[in-house]
Amino acid sequence: MRYAIGADVGGTNIRVGLIDESGRLIVKKSEPVGSARDPLPFFKRLTDLIENVAGAHLNSLSGIGLGLPGICNTKEGMIHQLPHFPSWRDVPVSKILSEKFSCPIVFDNDANMAALGELWRGTAKHLDSFIMLTLGTGIGGGLVLNRKLWQGAQGFAGEVGHMVIEVDGRACACGNKGCWEVYASSGAVPKETTAEKLADQAFAGDLEAKKFWETFGKYLGVGIANLASITGIENYVLGGGIAKAFPHFMESCKKAMHQNTYDHLASRVVILQSTLDGDGNLLGAANAVFTSRTW
Amino acid sequence: MRYAIGADVGGTNIRVGLIDESGRLIVKKSEPVGSARDPLPFFKRLTDLIENVAGAHLNSLSGIGLGLPGICNTKEGMIHQLPHFPSWRDVPVSKILSEKFSCPIVFDNDANMAALGELWRGTAKHLDSFIMLTLGTGIGGGLVLNRKLWQGAQGFAGEVGHMVIEVDGRACACGNKGCWEVYASSGAVPKETTAEKLADQAFAGDLEAKKFWETFGKYLGVGIANLASITGIENYVLGGGIAKAFPHFMESCKKAMHQNTYDHLASRVVILQSTLDGDGNLLGAANAVFTSRTW
Repeated sequence: MRYAIGADVGGTNIRVGLIDESGRLIVKKSEPVGSARDPLPFFKRLTDLIENVAGAHLNSLSGIGLGLPGICNTKEGMIHQLPHFPSWRDVPVSKILSEKFSCPIVFDNDANMAALGELWRGTAKHLDSFIMLTLGTGIGGGLVLNRKLWQGAQGFAGEVGHMVIEVDGRACACGNKGCWEVYASSGAVPKETTAEKLADQAFAGDLEAKKFWETFGKYLGVGIANLASITGIENYVLGGGIAKAFPHFMESCKKAMHQNTYDHLASRVVILQSTLDGDGNLLGAANAVFTSRTW
Repeated sequence: MRYAIGADVGGTNIRVGLIDESGRLIVKKSEPVGSARDPLPFFKRLTDLIENVAGAHLNSLSGIGLGLPGICNTKEGMIHQLPHFPSWRDVPVSKILSEKFSCPIVFDNDANMAALGELWRGTAKHLDSFIMLTLGTGIGGGLVLNRKLWQGAQGFAGEVGHMVIEVDGRACACGNKGCWEVYASSGAVPKETTAEKLADQAFAGDLEAKKFWETFGKYLGVGIANLASITGIENYVLGGGIAKAFPHFMESCKKAMHQNTYDHLASRVVILQSTLDGDGNLLGAANAVFTSRTW
């Protein structure tokens, strides 16, 4: 049996799993990112955690897969920008990890890793083509075409959250205006509350909270319609923390999707929820080690 | 030498060319679509023109390629909708032509055919991946990924003109609101004038006409930025009647493209003009006969 490390870095936690080639998650550990946001102390913490999780398999690993929530240039093995860690600029991830570990290193955007996880072990197991959408502080995207990840020339594909759906619209953290994720991620949640609270309130019947999710769903549906019009892809898998509020925004999302693309396509579009309960990124990162599933 | 027919149906003319496998356009004829918009008289007119243009090569043709400006289900050989010909619904194009001609029939959306033309003999000859944008009464799109046309599950991919860039924005002919093509095709031209007149006026220094093209370019650039963010594709080829006004909207288009996607990608994006002078659709339709260039 072959083994790989799947690792994922979020805004709050670093998570590392040991995964075998059948897709079994053998051991998983996480620790807070904390203040170690400068590249060198961060990589010290990450490599320590990888050694710890790999245990006896460390010297026989098939490789290490790492998902990072930023602009990844997979061709050059470099991450250009990482919004949570503003001090990171053009960090040579592959080079840094190769100095510590002798096995192959694969890194990519976290939404791409989540897409590979769904393709391997999740709700997209039987799908040829789909778009993974991770709904969190932004909207991440991973495009799977004919069972392979489409990365674009430099690995930049899938930055769907910054698709503009309102020219000169609301300000986005990226510096631009009207990006999709301003309307359909936690960026849309008013500062005085949280997505989780709003979901609970909607469940309890609160009308304002219900209205919030209805509007959220409308904007989510517009963006999915756009992706369908452009790519002709019929399957969309929702993951990330906010996807759990799916029942509250599902109806308005589907309605807006239908209204914003043409009938022959809309009637074929299927919107699914991830079934991997947050482990999709780790599984996908390991899968990227075991197979070459990119264009 | 092998020969194919490349045919294209626009709102005004039916155009048919005899093309050899080196990409030489040997003879080309066109006639007005006129009032023959019901499927059967239309196909009589089209097949007569094909016979006429094919001449002595009729019985040895490698095939007939046909581009149509509508929602083409290439998998089922059927066109669902053709906006210029509202009476067309689910017309079985492949079947109708196969009853008349014994050679293979290939049909697709006209923008997809234009993309294949650029890939074969045009400005995209040396590109791996690009998006063709035909600017006319709407915005047609053709996605070429790794030198093959990406069609989506049913052949519906590339309906980029109906990407929504203004939620609840201006009304589009499709019945929806805020579609890209309302802002960056001849749909953006005020009724009392034409794109050609506005281009002439801008060339002569008219400030209002210049302002029109500046705004046109801004919206065009937003949409190109969106396509780049989603697909990671770096090359865009503009064709269609309005592309000729390129010098008037180029600057604002590039500026808006830069402003609406992230720097690392924007700095790599190249916006090119078609060099095929309107024959791209015919060449692409013939190319689709000679080679299987689809996903």
